Amino acid sequence: MRIDAVDFFYLSMPEVTLEADGSQDALLVRVAGDNGIVGWGECEASPLTSIAAFVAPRSHGVCQPVSASVIGERLDDVDDIGRISALVQRNSMDLLQAPHTYSGVEAALWDLLGKVREQPAWSLLGYETAFGKTPYASMLFGSSPEQTRHDVLDAVERGFRAVKIGWGPYGTGTAAEDADHLAAAREALGAEGLLLVDAGQIWGEDVAAAAERVASLNEQNVTWLEEPFFPDSYGSYAQLASRSGRVRLAGGEGAHNVRMALNLIDHGGIGYVQIDCGRIGGLGAAKRVADYAVGAGVTYVNHTFTSHLALSASLQPFAGLRDHHICEYPAQPKQLALDLTTTRLTPDHNGLVFAPEAPGLGVEVNPAVFAQYGVAVRIEVGGEVLFASESSVPDRAQVLR
Amino acid sequence: MRIDAVDFFYLSMPEVTLEADGSQDALLVRVAGDNGIVGWGECEASPLTSIAAFVAPRSHGVCQPVSASVIGERLDDVDDIGRISALVQRNSMDLLQAPHTYSGVEAALWDLLGKVREQPAWSLLGYETAFGKTPYASMLFGSSPEQTRHDVLDAVERGFRAVKIGWGPYGTGTAAEDADHLAAAREALGAEGLLLVDAGQIWGEDVAAAAERVASLNEQNVTWLEEPFFPDSYGSYAQLASRSGRVRLAGGEGAHNVRMALNLIDHGGIGYVQIDCGRIGGLGAAKRVADYAVGAGVTYVNHTFTSHLALSASLQPFAGLRDHHICEYPAQPKQLALDLTTTRLTPDHNGLVFAPEAPGLGVEVNPAVFAQYGVAVRIEVGGEVLFASESSVPDRAQVLR
Repeated sequence: MRIDAVDFFYLSMPEVTLEADGSQDALLVRVAGDNGIVGWGECEASPLTSIAAFVAPRSHGVCQPVSASVIGERLDDVDDIGRISALVQRNSMDLLQAPHTYSGVEAALWDLLGKVREQPAWSLLGYETAFGKTPYASMLFGSSPEQTRHDVLDAVERGFRAVKIGWGPYGTGTAAEDADHLAAAREALGAEGLLLVDAGQIWGEDVAAAAERVASLNEQNVTWLEEPFFPDSYGSYAQLASRSGRVRLAGGEGAHNVRMALNLIDHGGIGYVQIDCGRIGGLGAAKRVADYAVGAGVTYVNHTFTSHLALSASLQPFAGLRDHHICEYPAQPKQLALDLTTTRLTPDHNGLVFAPEAPGLGVEVNPAVFAQYGVAVRIEVGGEVLFASESSVPDRAQVLR
Repeated sequence: MRIDAVDFFYLSMPEVTLEADGSQDALLVRVAGDNGIVGWGECEASPLTSIAAFVAPRSHGVCQPVSASVIGERLDDVDDIGRISALVQRNSMDLLQAPHTYSGVEAALWDLLGKVREQPAWSLLGYETAFGKTPYASMLFGSSPEQTRHDVLDAVERGFRAVKIGWGPYGTGTAAEDADHLAAAREALGAEGLLLVDAGQIWGEDVAAAAERVASLNEQNVTWLEEPFFPDSYGSYAQLASRSGRVRLAGGEGAHNVRMALNLIDHGGIGYVQIDCGRIGGLGAAKRVADYAVGAGVTYVNHTFTSHLALSASLQPFAGLRDHHICEYPAQPKQLALDLTTTRLTPDHNGLVFAPEAPGLGVEVNPAVFAQYGVAVRIEVGGEVLFASESSVPDRAQVLR
């Protein structure tokens, strides 16, 4: 088939706060083939900026908008997706936002091709089986240790045996205050539960500040410390990794290409590589990281804080890796993220989450979400309308196709 | 003073081609203090996308638009610029385009502070003297060796003793064809001239393909081979560096933060680090790279392919480094880039280029450029106008202030 159209849908909660909660808005992408079939994807990024990177006028040969490498291209087999990805990489080399924009488009290409082939994306990616993953509840630190205890307890009561807490006050006060939060979380989770901590880059490149937390992290038997530093501060990662005791380092969500993730493995000494399919360039790029992680003895984990469409996309690249069984699962998303799909990837009776068996990403977008959360966008350059969302909000027939 | 307003001006040639020539459009930034003084900067990026990254609605706490960290901030001394840069880095962590947008803003902050203090930016950056630099003519390979010879000869006739040729057919055909281009360039330049080659990332991560060119590069006494690979393919850089003979590797223009440039030094084995102040986060970020390069025994070089406003910005961070004397100089820019400023940084009677002694960036923007090259932009989100260039094209008084 030929790629006929790519449309973007900016969705948002009525109020967007300063919480580190990426589920407050969303950018949905719909790719339509000339056979009338559509695929869906989601970008994890600033919606307006990502739309601009798709429609912007060309600046020069390697600063072309993402659209230039996608619209009108053939999509007949898996290799076409890799070919289009390489085109975007070359033609949009100097357009920094391009990987975030393209990530949602690429996911939609897998969804579209999977629907045509009647195969799930993980099968197109070369896996024979989608193994169950142990979901961890991904949540923010409370404003106090009591609030953190309360939130972790809530996750435990909902059946989670693994919890990750991050951001909020962690790293912003003293090491003793951080230790109190960890103790509260461990108490609520119980001795057997898997406890993970996300520092949200709070220490920048300051290895000493991070090292002050190593004792309490080990004391509470934390499995990984995530993103202590900037995503490409490989030297800082390596230094902390050499003195973090039983606690391993995790990172990679900030990677906007395959190399950034591989560098974190090669030069940063991480034990867990966390990939967001909505940022790294899509499922194909994520699969390359997964393959490399297997060879390097590093565990692959998805990064997902938003909808179940994004969750399905993020599960595909490591669906067939039995030993890489931890899965980030949005535990406190905003209502928008929940309403975005009619399909939900809920844990089975063993508490495991699976990538869908249905074709493509196997997730149905909820047609009602556009009217309820849609944000109109209009971009004019030089008197020409480059983007107008009003004219392209999908009707029900298109969504269900 | 307080930062009262930041305005963007999208300028473009009537036709933008697929050449790898970044001087075909421009994004000018004007920052106004509450004292009525204005500073100017330039972003090296897709203008529409960079404007969007400034005005986009917030997605969450660390995906805020660049404006959130700039408008209303105090700017009283040099430390304020570093403080604002750190704010942008934190608050726009998940907005990929942010460093490209902020780079132009940051340059304008130095220009503004320099005008208030009546000091050139290089003096504010801590240098006592601005040393002369040897400009190299930066140009594209011709479509044939004959065309390359002709273009290099033209540069020689205009007084250049150093030439860099890049992009075009280089690396896209056989190693023998590339060797013919180099031989033609060397013949035109003469045995004494400094010859530099820019591969424009053409080999991706393919070390073997790059290595096939090592013999001809050495034979023509080329000083550096620039950007053979993706900007963060550190392993590929290191492998080629170990077998490139007398030819050193150069890279760094793709760095959109300090760490990327430092990683290329630490892990890539480059001999020359090339920084574009319009991408890396501005002059302060570039100065950090320059300081590190000095310590690491690596030569700092600016990356500049556009206007003399961008050239002045790019000269400031290494103006005081006497031994780092090579300077990229746009030799074939489009008319827009030439018309953009009334001030021109022309080589002196010794053929050397200097960062201006005038306050700030020391370059006057040409008021006529807005009417001739201005591109109207209008961005509406949720019924609200977030950006409308028509209402903010500067009058002459503002420009000359």
